[in-house]
Amino acid sequence: MLIEEMTVKQCHEFLVRMDFGRLGCVHDNQPYVVPIYFAYEPDRLYGFSTLGRKIEWMRSNPRVCVEVDEVIDTKSWNCVIASGRYEELPNASQYVSERQRAYKLLEKRFLWWQTAYAAEQPRHAHQPSLTILYCIHVAEMTGRRAEPDQFDAGRTHQKISG
Amino acid sequence: MLIEEMTVKQCHEFLVRMDFGRLGCVHDNQPYVVPIYFAYEPDRLYGFSTLGRKIEWMRSNPRVCVEVDEVIDTKSWNCVIASGRYEELPNASQYVSERQRAYKLLEKRFLWWQTAYAAEQPRHAHQPSLTILYCIHVAEMTGRRAEPDQFDAGRTHQKISG
Repeated sequence: MLIEEMTVKQCHEFLVRMDFGRLGCVHDNQPYVVPIYFAYEPDRLYGFSTLGRKIEWMRSNPRVCVEVDEVIDTKSWNCVIASGRYEELPNASQYVSERQRAYKLLEKRFLWWQTAYAAEQPRHAHQPSLTILYCIHVAEMTGRRAEPDQFDAGRTHQKISG
Repeated sequence: MLIEEMTVKQCHEFLVRMDFGRLGCVHDNQPYVVPIYFAYEPDRLYGFSTLGRKIEWMRSNPRVCVEVDEVIDTKSWNCVIASGRYEELPNASQYVSERQRAYKLLEKRFLWWQTAYAAEQPRHAHQPSLTILYCIHVAEMTGRRAEPDQFDAGRTHQKISG
């Protein structure tokens, strides 16, 4: 297995292609990690959520970390870890253009959106649900990827050829 | 899609079956989320790592969060989020039995272990690498799972027969 650091360009390309990851936020030095759906363009990651612990914590401490991985098998995977700052995009005049941009990017995954939104329903069964749109401004990003090396390929060949 | 909270028993069974998740740790109110391999038995999650940011941060602040999910498709998934406390299991007499227990559980995924260990090598190419064994004592755990409901099943049938 050959492992290498990803370039910034490779990190961007990977995040643009992906739409599912995990977001970590913090309250009083206690971390909380949850799965999220997102849409990415360089240095901005857009997401949405109903009100809950994640949003409350990010409102009080905007420092977050997003981890996105793609594991094809044990010897072939990509992983990007991005640190950044949470900004809520409320339904107000100064956020119109950024909300439109977020919607445009997120619309491409509309089915995922519906699914994730539905997942929030049991918690809010007796109250109207409000979707919150947000942006993570990425400040730092690292990525690593692995692929089978010549020895792995040899072993695979041996296995296939019997 | 039908979404429901998982019982404690269901959370345990899910974590026993899984071996890959994401661990969140914190330093100075900044979260850091990384993929981990693990072995679980009720209320204890064993993992290993070489020395790096994750271990350094958990040594200074043992409060951690582990997220484990399994996404079969958009309408069928499981997700457990566990908060707990990091404890390192150094190679010392008072940790012998717990280290043996950890090794026994982790051995079942030995190939994963080797892979994850190899993944740490580029960072430590010029220094000897030291594998650190640790335990997360789980204090709080929640889980949710989704499965297709009768309407999804109807749509699937329609698609297949149509």
